[in-house]
Order: sequence, then C-alpha cells, then structure tokens
Amino acid sequence: MASHPIDFLLLGNNFGTPEMREIWSEKNRLTQQINVEVALALAEGELGVIPQQAALSIAELADPSQLNIDDIAASGAQMKHSLMPVLTALQKQCGDAGEYIHYGATTQDIVDTATVLQLARTMKVIVRDATALADVLKNLAREHQYTLMAGRTHGMQALPTTFGFKVAVWLDEFIRHLDRLQAITPRLLTGNLSGAISTYAALGEAGPEVERRTLARLNLNTPNIGWQAARDRFSEYASTAVLISGTLGKIGNELYNLMRTEINEVEEPFSAGKIGSTTMPHKRNPAAIEGLASLTAPLLHSASLIYQSMHVEHERDAMSWRAEWIALPEISIYLSAQLQNARAILSGLTVNKARMLANLQMQDGLLLSEKVMFEAGKKLGKQTAHHLVYECAMQAFENRLSFKTVLLAHPVLAASISEEDLDHWLDPANYIGCAPQKVDDVIRFAEQSGHLSSPEKPAI
Amino acid sequence: MASHPIDFLLLGNNFGTPEMREIWSEKNRLTQQINVEVALALAEGELGVIPQQAALSIAELADPSQLNIDDIAASGAQMKHSLMPVLTALQKQCGDAGEYIHYGATTQDIVDTATVLQLARTMKVIVRDATALADVLKNLAREHQYTLMAGRTHGMQALPTTFGFKVAVWLDEFIRHLDRLQAITPRLLTGNLSGAISTYAALGEAGPEVERRTLARLNLNTPNIGWQAARDRFSEYASTAVLISGTLGKIGNELYNLMRTEINEVEEPFSAGKIGSTTMPHKRNPAAIEGLASLTAPLLHSASLIYQSMHVEHERDAMSWRAEWIALPEISIYLSAQLQNARAILSGLTVNKARMLANLQMQDGLLLSEKVMFEAGKKLGKQTAHHLVYECAMQAFENRLSFKTVLLAHPVLAASISEEDLDHWLDPANYIGCAPQKVDDVIRFAEQSGHLSSPEKPAI
Amino acid sequence: MASHPIDFLLLGNNFGTPEMREIWSEKNRLTQQINVEVALALAEGELGVIPQQAALSIAELADPSQLNIDDIAASGAQMKHSLMPVLTALQKQCGDAGEYIHYGATTQDIVDTATVLQLARTMKVIVRDATALADVLKNLAREHQYTLMAGRTHGMQALPTTFGFKVAVWLDEFIRHLDRLQAITPRLLTGNLSGAISTYAALGEAGPEVERRTLARLNLNTPNIGWQAARDRFSEYASTAVLISGTLGKIGNELYNLMRTEINEVEEPFSAGKIGSTTMPHKRNPAAIEGLASLTAPLLHSASLIYQSMHVEHERDAMSWRAEWIALPEISIYLSAQLQNARAILSGLTVNKARMLANLQMQDGLLLSEKVMFEAGKKLGKQTAHHLVYECAMQAFENRLSFKTVLLAHPVLAASISEEDLDHWLDPANYIGCAPQKVDDVIRFAEQSGHLSSPEKPAI
Amino acid sequence: MASHPIDFLLLGNNFGTPEMREIWSEKNRLTQQINVEVALALAEGELGVIPQQAALSIAELADPSQLNIDDIAASGAQMKHSLMPVLTALQKQCGDAGEYIHYGATTQDIVDTATVLQLARTMKVIVRDATALADVLKNLAREHQYTLMAGRTHGMQALPTTFGFKVAVWLDEFIRHLDRLQAITPRLLTGNLSGAISTYAALGEAGPEVERRTLARLNLNTPNIGWQAARDRFSEYASTAVLISGTLGKIGNELYNLMRTEINEVEEPFSAGKIGSTTMPHKRNPAAIEGLASLTAPLLHSASLIYQSMHVEHERDAMSWRAEWIALPEISIYLSAQLQNARAILSGLTVNKARMLANLQMQDGLLLSEKVMFEAGKKLGKQTAHHLVYECAMQAFENRLSFKTVLLAHPVLAASISEEDLDHWLDPANYIGCAPQKVDDVIRFAEQSGHLSSPEKPAI
Repeated sequence: MASHPIDFLLLGNNFGTPEMREIWSEKNRLTQQINVEVALALAEGELGVIPQQAALSIAELADPSQLNIDDIAASGAQMKHSLMPVLTALQKQCGDAGEYIHYGATTQDIVDTATVLQLARTMKVIVRDATALADVLKNLAREHQYTLMAGRTHGMQALPTTFGFKVAVWLDEFIRHLDRLQAITPRLLTGNLSGAISTYAALGEAGPEVERRTLARLNLNTPNIGWQAARDRFSEYASTAVLISGTLGKIGNELYNLMRTEINEVEEPFSAGKIGSTTMPHKRNPAAIEGLASLTAPLLHSASLIYQSMHVEHERDAMSWRAEWIALPEISIYLSAQLQNARAILSGLTVNKARMLANLQMQDGLLLSEKVMFEAGKKLGKQTAHHLVYECAMQAFENRLSFKTVLLAHPVLAASISEEDLDHWLDPANYIGCAPQKVDDVIRFAEQSGHLSSPEKPAI
Repeated sequence: MASHPIDFLLLGNNFGTPEMREIWSEKNRLTQQINVEVALALAEGELGVIPQQAALSIAELADPSQLNIDDIAASGAQMKHSLMPVLTALQKQCGDAGEYIHYGATTQDIVDTATVLQLARTMKVIVRDATALADVLKNLAREHQYTLMAGRTHGMQALPTTFGFKVAVWLDEFIRHLDRLQAITPRLLTGNLSGAISTYAALGEAGPEVERRTLARLNLNTPNIGWQAARDRFSEYASTAVLISGTLGKIGNELYNLMRTEINEVEEPFSAGKIGSTTMPHKRNPAAIEGLASLTAPLLHSASLIYQSMHVEHERDAMSWRAEWIALPEISIYLSAQLQNARAILSGLTVNKARMLANLQMQDGLLLSEKVMFEAGKKLGKQTAHHLVYECAMQAFENRLSFKTVLLAHPVLAASISEEDLDHWLDPANYIGCAPQKVDDVIRFAEQSGHLSSPEKPAI
Repeated sequence: MASHPIDFLLLGNNFGTPEMREIWSEKNRLTQQINVEVALALAEGELGVIPQQAALSIAELADPSQLNIDDIAASGAQMKHSLMPVLTALQKQCGDAGEYIHYGATTQDIVDTATVLQLARTMKVIVRDATALADVLKNLAREHQYTLMAGRTHGMQALPTTFGFKVAVWLDEFIRHLDRLQAITPRLLTGNLSGAISTYAALGEAGPEVERRTLARLNLNTPNIGWQAARDRFSEYASTAVLISGTLGKIGNELYNLMRTEINEVEEPFSAGKIGSTTMPHKRNPAAIEGLASLTAPLLHSASLIYQSMHVEHERDAMSWRAEWIALPEISIYLSAQLQNARAILSGLTVNKARMLANLQMQDGLLLSEKVMFEAGKKLGKQTAHHLVYECAMQAFENRLSFKTVLLAHPVLAASISEEDLDHWLDPANYIGCAPQKVDDVIRFAEQSGHLSSPEKPAI
Repeated sequence: MASHPIDFLLLGNNFGTPEMREIWSEKNRLTQQINVEVALALAEGELGVIPQQAALSIAELADPSQLNIDDIAASGAQMKHSLMPVLTALQKQCGDAGEYIHYGATTQDIVDTATVLQLARTMKVIVRDATALADVLKNLAREHQYTLMAGRTHGMQALPTTFGFKVAVWLDEFIRHLDRLQAITPRLLTGNLSGAISTYAALGEAGPEVERRTLARLNLNTPNIGWQAARDRFSEYASTAVLISGTLGKIGNELYNLMRTEINEVEEPFSAGKIGSTTMPHKRNPAAIEGLASLTAPLLHSASLIYQSMHVEHERDAMSWRAEWIALPEISIYLSAQLQNARAILSGLTVNKARMLANLQMQDGLLLSEKVMFEAGKKLGKQTAHHLVYECAMQAFENRLSFKTVLLAHPVLAASISEEDLDHWLDPANYIGCAPQKVDDVIRFAEQSGHLSSPEKPAI
C-alpha cells in the first residue's frame, strides 16, 4: 500500500491523473527501458554489430508484460543495481540471443533514453490539455467580454473592468506557454546512446550510427554529443512546467478569492452529494479550486530540486540523478492534475453577474475617482486635480459620505463640474476603456497562433 | 503500480525504509484516523456527551483492518471529501452506535491528530536510529583517534589531522541533533480536537475536557488553543530533519570524496554480487554512499515546501495543508533511509590507513609549511616568517622541488633553521595539535549527554 | 550607489530596519573581526603565547573606525583574499606589536567568530522585538476577546468566532517562538578559534585555553570541537527565523484579506499624505500590510539557501560559506522589518466591529447550520440531522431563501424545532463556544512563560 | 555603508561585476523610470493627448542626473510610495509642463517598463559574455581534442577520454543556452503602458497607440494585453539564467575536483601576491574556481523566489512584486560574475597533461576492463565475458595485483587472449572511441549556429 499521496487510492486523484500516473509508473518505466534495448538490438543487427538473427529474436521474445517485478526487485536488492536485474530477466526471456542484449551500452544510456520516451508521452498529454484549456479560456473570454466587474489592486477595488478581460490575460499567457512547449520539444526529445562515458568506446566507429538508428526507431532526436553529464534539458522541461503551473495556480487563487462569501462572484461546479464539511452542513467550499491552487507550490519545489541535478560530477554521478527520478514524475503528475482541474472548473464555472455589478457599486462612486480626476484635470491640470480629488475621496471614505455629495460640495471642484457630467462619470459602464477591444485582440492573436483547436486540428 | 519512486518495488529502498513507509502508508493513515475517532468516542462516553454504551460499542466494533479501501475511494470520488467516506464506512461497522461517531469534531481535528500519531511513531524511529548512529560514530572516533590523514581545505591538502577527529565532529553534531529531537517532541506531539474552527462550539463547555481526555488516551499533549491555523510545529519538525539530513548528506559527500580512485582512503562495505556497472566490470562504485548523499537535497526541498503551509488563511484553508500531506511523508521517509544507510556504511567502512599516510606525504613536506612558519616566526616574527615561507612554498611548488631543499637554501631562513629541526617539523605525526584530545572531549561530552546507548538504555 | 534593494535609499526600509542593516554592514563586519583579533591577542598575552606588552599595544592601537576601507578593498583585489588586507592594515596600525596579530589563528576562526558576534546583536534585537510584539498581541487579544466576527474556512464563512480568539492563536505561536529563540541561543552564540583545521596545531597544548579565554572575553560559548566543518548552528538560526517569519507573513496575509473592500473588517494605520495610487485618488491600500506579508517568501528562500552551506567538504571549503555570507544578513534584515512592521500595524490597527457584525449576518442564518444540526441531532441522531440540515442549507443557498424559513418548512425538522429555539440558535453571539475562555488560557500561559514584558522586565 | 554582500566594497566583486551592479543600481533604476516618463510624454505629445509643447519641455528639462535621491527618499518615507516622490521631483524640474508628466499612466506601468529597460541592457551583457565564453570553450576543446585523461563516473575512474571531449560537452550546452537567450528576448523585452488596471481607461481609445509609440521609442515590444497580472516573462528570464548558471556551477565544481591535491590535473590562473591562507603559506587554493561554483546555489534560490511572483492577485498586488525587486538584480548580478569568472579561469587554465596521463595509469590496467570484456566477449559472449572479467577485476583489486597478471592466469580467459592483444587492449590511448570526432562535431555545430564570434561578428 502506497506511502506517497500521489499513489494513494483515496487521495491520489487530487495530485495527478490516472493517465499521467500510468506514464510514470514503475511498470511503464521498465517497459520503456526494454523498448530501448530492443531498438538498440535492431539497430545493431542492421549494422552487423550483433548478428541480425539475434536482434530479430530479441525483438520477438522481449516481453515487458511478462517480467516478474517482484523477482526483479529481489535480485536488485542483491546486486545493488537498478538495471542489471532487468537485463538478467530480459536475457532469460531472449534465450541464446540474450547474450546480445545491451551490447555496447551503459546503464545510463538506457535509463536516460527510456526517461525521454516517458517525457515524449508526457509532452503529448500536456500539449493536448493546455490546448483544450486555451480553447475553454477563449470561449470564456468571448462570453464575458462585456461582463462588468470590479478590477482590484492590492485587494482593494480599483476601477471597473470586465470578466472577459481578466480571462483574456490568462489566454494570452497560455498562448505563450504553448509557444514554449513547442520550442523545447526538439531539445527535450533527444536520446542518448553512447556508452560508458559517451565516447562510444565499446562500439568504436560504428557507435554514432548505432545511436542514430536506435533513436530514429524511437522517434527521438540524436544529440551532437552525449549528455550524461549535461542535464539542462530536464531542467528546461521543469522550467516550462513551472511557468504553466504558475499561471494555473494564479487562476486557482483568483477564483478562490472571487468565490469568498463576501465577494461571491463565481462558484465552482457543484454536484449533488458533494460534502463541504463533516460538521457544517451549509458549507459549499471551493474544494476543486483549492486543489487547483494548491499544486503550484509542490511543483515549484520539485522543479527547484531538479535544477540541482544539473550539478553532475565528471562524466556522471549517482547523486545528481536521484533528483531527476523524484522530480520528473512529480512535476508531470502535479501538472496533469492542474490542467485537467482547471479545464473542469472553468468550463463549468458559475459567473454571478448580478453580484459582480452589485460589488461594483458598493463604494458609492469612489471607484471612479480616477475618471473624475482626469475630467477635472482637463481644466485644473492633472496633478492639481489628483490632489483635490484625493482630498474628497479621503473625506468621503472617512465620513462614509457619498463621493458625489462631497465632490459637489467642494469649493474648487464644484465650479468646474456639473452634476449631469458627474453622474455620467460615476457610471462604471462608461469607464472600462479598451477592455473589450483587448479581448478581441487576444482572441485574434490566439487564433492566428495555430495553437487553438480548429476544424483541421480538432479538440480532443 | 506505483508512480512515485518512494513506492517503487525495485528502487523504493533507495528512498526509504519499509518500516517508515508503513508508518506513512495510506492504510496506517486511515487506521490512525479511526484510532482518533475511537478515543474521542470513549472520552465523550466518559463525560456523558454521548451515551457511554455507544462509546463502548464504537470501541469494540470499529475495525480499520476490515475497511474496504477501494469502496472508500470510490465513495470519496463522489463526495469530493477525504474523510467523509471513511466516516460513512466506519458508521456502518458500528451499527446503531455509528450515529455517535465524530461527535462535535471537524475533519481537520481527525486528520491533524492522526498525523501527529504518525509523527509520534516516526519520532521514535528517528531517535532510535540517530542514537544507534551516534554509537557507531563514537566507536569509529575512538578507533581512529590517532589514525593520521591529511586535513583538506578548499579541496587541497592543508595540515595533518586524524580520521577520528573528523568523525568526532560528526558525533558532536549528532549529539546536538539528539538534543533538538528531544526539545521539539513535546511541542510536536500535541493533538487538536476543538471543532470546526477550534472554538468547541459544538460541544460547548465540555469541549476542552473532551479534548484533553481524548488526547491523553492517545498519549498526546493538549494545546493551549487549537492549531488548525498555526502550523509551526510541523515546520519545526521539518527543520530538525533538515539539520540531521544536512549532516548525513555531508558525511555521504565526504566519504564519496575519500573513496575517489585518486584518494582511496575509505571504501564502503562491499558484498559479493554487487555490480558497479553493466559495462565496466572493474567498477566498485560508492553506490551506498551516493545513496546517502543524494537524499539531502530532496529532503531540503520537501522541508522548504512545508514551510509554505504555515501560510494558512483565516481559520483554515485547504491550499496550505496539501503541502503537509506531501512533505511530511517525504521528509520522514527520506530521513529513515539516510539514517539506516549511514549506520550500515559507517559500521562496515574499510579505512585504508596506509593510503592515508601515503597521501599525507605526497607533497613532500609542503603540508607542514605552517609549522615551519611558526617555528621560524619565533625568531623572525610571524608575519615576516609567513612571507618568507610563502616564497619558499611557491618556489617548491612551481619547480617541483622538495620543500626541505628550498628552505635550507633560503638565505634568511637557513640561518635560523637546523636540518634536524626541519626534519622534525616536517613529520606530519608531530603536527596534529590537540586532535586526539578533542576526540576525548567529544566522546566524554557525548557519554554525559545521556543520548548514547548504555547498559540502562541498551542499543536496539 | 547600491544595487541590492536592501541597501536602496528610497526602498531600503521596506526590506529592513536601519538598526539591523547597521549590524550587518560591511563596516560592522570589519569592526567585529578586529574585535576578535584583539580578544585573541589579549588572551594570548595573558597566557604568554605572545608577549603581554604586544597584546596590550594591539588592544590600544587597533582602531576599526580609522581603517580605510577603499584601500583595503583595493589590496583585497590583488591578494584575492577577504581577510588578509584587513590584517595588513591592522598590523600597520599596531606598529611593532602588529607581528603578533592573528597569532595561531586561521581566517575562518576570525570570520566565523565575528559573524557570531553579529548574530549576538541580532538575537538581542529579535528577542526584543518579538517580545514587544507579543505584548501587543496580548493586549489586542484581551481587547477583542468578545468582538464577534465570522470565522472562515476555505475562504468561506464557517462559524462565529471573536477577533481576540484569532489574535490569541498568534500570541500562542509567539510564545513558542520566544521559547525557541531562548533554546537556540547557547548553541548559536558559540565561537570558534582553533586554527587552520581546528586542531590547534599552531598553538599546541595552549590552544584550547587560548580559545576559551578569547571567547569568554567576547561573551561567547566555547565549542566541544571546532565547527568549521559543522555549520548546523547557522541553519538552526535560519530555521527559527523561518518559523517566526511564517507567523508574521500569515498575519500580514490575514490582515490583507480582512481589509479587502468587500470584507473591510480592519484597516492599517493611515497617515495623512500617504498615497495609495499615482492615478486613483480614492485608493487606501494595505501598503504596510503587504510589506509585512511580502517578506516571508524571500526569507524562506534565504533560509533554504543557507541549508546548503551545511554541505562542507573536508575540513572546510569556500563554496558552502558563500551561502552564509548572503543568507545571514538577508534573513536577519528581512525579519527585522517584519517584526517592526507587524508591531506598528497591530498597535495602530483599526478594527471595524460594526462591519464584522454585519458580515456575520450576510448569509441570513446559514452560518449557524452546525448549531441547528447539533440541536436537531439530539432528537434525530447527528448523522441524520447532518443529512437533513444539509438539504435545507443547499436549498436556501440555491434559491436565496432565508435559512430559517426553509428549516421551518421542512416536514421532519419542523416537527422537532420551535421558532423560538431556532431564533436562539441562529444568533451568532450564542455560538462562539469557548473562544473567550481560550483567550484567557493563552494569555495566562503567556504571562507565566516569562516571555512578556513585566515590571521586572520592562518593555523597550 | 552597504549591508548586502553584493554591495560590499571588499567582497562585492565576488558576487557581481561593476557593470552589472551599475545596471541594477538605484540610480539607474530612477533614470530608466524617467526615461519611460519622457518617452510617454513625447508619444502623448505627438498624438495630441497632451500639448506637444509640454511634451517637448519635459523631454528637455527632465534630468535624472540632477535628482536629489536623499530628498526623494525622505519624501518617499512620508508618502509611503515608491514612485510618487520621484514624480514630484520630476514635476518640479519640468516647470509648467510638469502637470503633464505620467499622464494616464499608473505606477506599475513605469516600474515595469523601466525594469524591462534594465533587462534589455542585462540581456546584452549576458549574451556578450556567454558568446565570449563559448569562444573560449571552442578553443579549449580544439586545443585538447586529443589530450588523454581519465573519465570518471561515481567519482571513480571509468574509461579514458580526452579533456577536449569534456569541454565540448560544455560548449554544446552553451550553444543551447545562446539559443534560449535568443528565443526569450522578444517576449522578455516587452513593455507595459496601459493604465491603472491595463484597460487604458484614463486614455480611452488613444490608449493603445500611446502605448505602442512609447514602447517603440524605447525599443521595446508592445504586448497583446497588459501583463501587470501576468509575470511569466520575468520567471522565464530567471529560468534561462538557472540553466546557464547550472552549467557554470558544474564547470566550477569540475575544475575544483580536477585541481584537488591528489588529482592535480588543472590549476586556476595564479598571480603573484595571491594569498591562499593567512596561516598556511603553501596553500594555492582554487579561490576563483570556488567563487565560480559557489554562485549557482544563490542564483537558483533567487529564481525559485521569483517564481512565486507569478502568483498575482486580481489585477495586481504588492506582495508578489517584492520578490521581483529582490530577485531580478540578484540573478543578473550573480550571473554576471559567473560568466566573467568562467571566462577568466578557462582562458588562463593550466592543464597538467603529464599528471592526466599518470592518473590514467594508476590502476594498472583495471580501467580498461570494458575493452577486455568486449574483446573476450567476441568469443565467449558478452554477458559471460562480463562475468569472468568482473571476477578478475575484483581479484586484482582486492589483492592489489596487476590486472594483466590476473587475466593471463585465468583458466578460461587466458585460453582466448594473447599477451600481445592484452597489451594493446590495456593501452588507454587505444580506447577513447569517438571522443575526438565528437569534439569536431560539436565545434562544427557551434560554428554553424551563428552564436560564436566571427569576422562579421567580432568578439568583444
């Protein structure tokens, strides 16, 4: 029974999706290692490095699904080695051809290339889910392009905006994230098959071609030079995950705040039977939203850990790579949950427009102080107007008076402001600037980026 | 099949001990939660908060070993709650008395107190293993109190020392760690049973007494006030683990460096059948040592994550505690492996005294430059002597000459140094200062600290 | 002109206090290093290790305030050493006695012990300010022991509580912090004066006594064995700072949320002339509060950095200690600002009781669902009552009905509830449990702890 | 006098270059803020948003070099605002036109865009220095393409390689880093000028064009939508710095290990007058190398801090951006020192070829066990050969026998190995595989990348 929450039956889905857990499962790890060994054997058979017949037998007889993991674990405990027992078991499966397994390779070749195969599947899932989320964001931004709400800075109401504008900022970020994912893919999906210290000593001149063909069979790129001692690619993957998770955590936190009892502008999808509290029957908690928000910190820490694995000594060491074994699954699994949670929450989100409007008006005009300042400033100069309007605003706030009343009673300001103008200025709907236009701009950019789904590139 | 390496069959023991994995297993988590519910019911029965008979029935019928975790997980997915499905299953076990389960408690009460029960077992294991390691360090320091070797600063040989002195530094640290473990225990092993927002509203005046009796049954302390919103205790535990793991990682790194081919002063225990490399038959790698050294970084990152869980909003939120669910098992499990590995390595360590001596002499006297300076300084003044001896040392180094030859050829120094004196000064055995005496000091302190095992407090 | 914000003229006070910046200034660093050299010379003079007269001359002539730091920096650039140019300048100051400076010591002895002297002053300031803050918290908890407000979990209103209760949780944490500060002090304030690799080789048998007397002069403890290679004390200090800063950041974040426009239950001290925004005249931002909240993350990262300095190689290396040079000032300076900001904010905090009450009532009774459940449960059983009351709560919420109306219309519940009882149960003032009593408990504990200021131990 | 080591006179150059400190100095910060205000005024003048004459006056009269920073700091303390006092001082400089300063902008517009201007200069320096370093790496890889040395894994000698191969791995990484720097530049160098909450409300329809023209004047890109609440670009910059610093730290650590007394294969540039130790005259420490290695950890922690600034609340908050103020200078300054140190060290590095060869032979043939296994395996099968050669290697090691002797005495192996063959196999020069060819491959790739300096793109 598992001890890490990622693998808990009751809680595991809070930390990752079943699909991503499968990619990083011990079973798939071994399977991909064997896939690398088979591809290597076939490449070596083609080139006559090992007998062609042996290669074909290996390809035929190797069967990861039949390996007994308990036996392998027991034998690993004796050998104190992580791959040797797998090779021994595999050799047995392959009979006489077994002698030719792992020919000219080193453990790290297999472990690294198999890890990259896991990352290849991971990247597919992440790109798929990030695209789907971008689609949702586009629709949400469009739907609420004109939905008025309070913009807030420092936790305080600042100016009117629209909910669609807020969502468009997120969409713009996701287009950047999809750009980044695309940019790192060729670097990341690069294998490694160059022997003990990457000099191909065991295979001699044939080495580079064995590597090229093996990796081509696995749909991976071939490096300029072995990267056993150069782990920047994994850290670059982690960094990209950090940026995506940063946005997702921010969205989670934003929704959490907008759902507060006192703000109440959104609600996460509610399903009958969902329990908020074991003791307070009325509680409808932002449970899914908190789940979304809560995984950014762990992911950031896993990324920060993997950065330390760049610190390889000499041609390789086993201290730095332990960090990769821990952090790559963690990052991928946490991110999978965040992407799917965000999509579920945002596509089922209840947006409480009436409450958004009501909140906009709770400060009785103060929110529009900037507008008043700018209009008054046209006659009085902006800095002067800032000064006078600041006085009125402070007075209204301190004495809980209507901002309009205070302004109209001000000796200087009253002289240059009509009540009719003031009513117009104090209407939030008249002061959202280019918010809706920016929503258009972002959506247009997103559509032209090629990253959203389209008839030619249908959504999942 | 697990996806986090902690739970891997083949690799899991690199990351933790089976004993510690069991403490943090999902199964034990539920078991401890139920233990808390039972203790609560019994305390409430005693006080008449619930019918005494119901309490006794709960204590008799509750049986964590019979819970079907798959069913609970399925029901959790529907309720979107982590404890409610457990309560429902438990209620069913307890028949009519089930109505009285979890009376006046909130989820967090149970989750927190059960976690502290897991920590209570964890602390026992850590103290036990840290004590055992301190015993090993004491014996090693004693054994090598006079074993000459090169002290090194900046990676360069500096002055002679003894291996026992190096180990005594570690022993001194471990005594401090055992002090710290002792100091945090009463704070850490404090439960929490005060209801929805820690005001005991549901239980009214009886609340504090219910809490006190429940926690006393569980051998836990009672807090001054509920700590649902004050998580410093878990971070303090993490910090203590950081310090211990820092020492262990340092020891691992030290042994790794001392085992380098070119230094070769120690070797980790070797067992027949251990494989260093799948391709290089001669390799005898410091595999266990690297394992020891490699877990400090992950542990530090988990600690750093848990610190963020101190940032609770209002009376509680579910974003911060996710960090605890992840980090507490990680920290405890990584530390368990480090403690046991360190003990195994150090109690079976091969110390290559001959090589230590040979290494001491590889610089042909340069290592003793400080001694020469001090002796020459007695006549010439220390700063002056530093200047002259520095010149000679640089000359010997640059021209690969014997230090002695250069010194005796120096116009000023030669005048105040006899060859006989010089031979004495250049013998490393004459320049270890108080190293052996300090070994005695530390061992005496350790023995008086009460932390080592003794006839009254036998080793495990 | 400075490049790190800690040293900015315009912004520096956001990141630290002038007092703490002075402690960690380059000038004070050199001053403390010279203080160590002087104490060493005096101890050595007493013991006849150097001529007594030379020692007295050094004590008389050494004058840190007259050192020309620009010259020292220039000479440091040539020597590529951080202490040697200081020693050279000091030697010049001391004339003939200068030869006897730094006798038998190594750079690290001086750097480490001087750092501990900086930490000694730092600890005084931290304990003083943490005590002063605890005093403020005690008074605030007492003042608002009965001030009703909504308790919130998951960002949603949960149950009534009092503001004093919330503050008492913080006070309880600070008493623990003061305990911790006390506990680490003797370990932390331990110097180091044992020569090149801590074996006292240069001083021989006199070494330990030279160290003991030197450190006694500086009011520092003497270690069992040199700690050049055992840096756990600095990390322990960092960990304690992490816990304190964690509480302070949490308080900042709490106040930030309570000051939100839509909650508006507290306001930070406002002074005329304070500008919220260069463009929005009405803005009264929680600027001080945000400042308080924002320094926890940087401090945590500095602490996490210093943990890596525990990873010393051999007898010493210069890679790990760079982390200390960076992190010790950062931690101390950030913490100084947080402590003083917290005290200023909390002692001038506006608590808006009317709004607290109004917020409590905004859900029209739903907040008391637990109370209704418990009362109804007395007849119906708790789990059954939870089920029925949950139905009513969801119905009231979905249809924006009064909770009372829905309850009284429920076929089963209505039968066992009278309207009069219900009115009583739905009054928040009747459901704060033991909140005020717990405030008493914590204050009593705090007073007995000896950590608060008192007639015998007056506040600053 | 400064309190952060970055700003120390004596130590500052260990942490950054004077050039980079100047970019991030408080003075340059204000200067760039004023540059933004001037560009804004000019754009607004062109578009008639403010009087053209006022714009010209502002451009003429604004003079950052004449601002009195002490006055500004004093006024900032009263206003509790970071930009307002600068604006006030600037307004005074500009006379009547001063009213039109900062028209329609918010503080964050100016602060953000000025920061991006600092980053623009930073990026130039980093690209310049990374290019110069890549040039050095290319030359070093070419020079030592055939310089034989031991490859090491797990700290133990593994197989022969060449020093040029090791350097080529670093060069390959730096070409990737230069690719990354190029890729992030357009995203990073994007300004922000869209008003209080990025809706351009104050400027209305003219807003986007004012922004476009202002940013064009500053050579910055215009965003699709304001990024006050979307800080991924700064974190992406930090991530790229992490990767570069990761490589630099690894190089530093590698050189540190190769310079160890017992390995002694390289030495950092030495200059007369450099002091290794205040007490041990013979010490020639890897001081510059340790400096290089030691800055990766601080940089990683600063990056990890800035990631948290992605967590913006609502349209903006002041908690998250504090992390940027701290971390952007830290990252840029630490990286500047690492790049320049690495270049200085590597271009003056002493490579001790004779010692490299001697180290290769210290294991008396064991190093070539893989070669023997492969050759023997041609007759016996590889796994069988691994088994037999492993036995011989362990026997040679345990009994300190010559590997050759043991092999020739082995009943099975001796039958299929001639002494002549064995001598050939045990010569390290015959077993470096494709190492030199890979050096060629990487250099060719680097030259074609366009990233190195060339006649068209001369080195600095």
